[in-house]
Amino acid sequence: MSDLESCMITIIQTFHQYSGQKCNLKKADLKELINNEMNNFIVKIKENDTLDKLFADLDQNGDLEIDFKEFIALIAMVTSACNELKAWQGKGKRS
Amino acid sequence: MSDLESCMITIIQTFHQYSGQKCNLKKADLKELINNEMNNFIVKIKENDTLDKLFADLDQNGDLEIDFKEFIALIAMVTSACNELKAWQGKGKRS
Repeated sequence: MSDLESCMITIIQTFHQYSGQKCNLKKADLKELINNEMNNFIVKIKENDTLDKLFADLDQNGDLEIDFKEFIALIAMVTSACNELKAWQGKGKRS
Repeated sequence: MSDLESCMITIIQTFHQYSGQKCNLKKADLKELINNEMNNFIVKIKENDTLDKLFADLDQNGDLEIDFKEFIALIAMVTSACNELKAWQGKGKRS
């Protein structure tokens, strides 16, 4: 499996690690995932209104849960921002 | 850096590996990337009309090149499909 393919698997596994059996992220799950797994790219969420705003932006179907499609949209946004900020240059390629 | 973050870096680096200095993928670049890096998830592209159709679908702004935003949309689609197909279960978590 290529690095790119195993990264896609890792993205899926990380989502399920925090969504558990229900396959959707509640607000607390999203906060925990971002603060644990994305704190080099996204400022740690402390204020509830920051979380509420982000959650509302991601929750495209308004069901008060983040499904995988809504989660991967966050990953795509943050990855695109990193690409534009050239944040990736100088980072060692995964072995 | 978390596994998730280093995966985002890997996705960016893979794109730049095939886009080179121009930061956009031409048709031949896209074919090479998919056939080399995604052949466990996408059937190898052999026919030109398969490539033309995929390229046209991805090339949202019609500039005959695939920029990073258009590329990450492909990654999001394929990752979502893998999630739905449960293709990720049983795959070792990256160390």
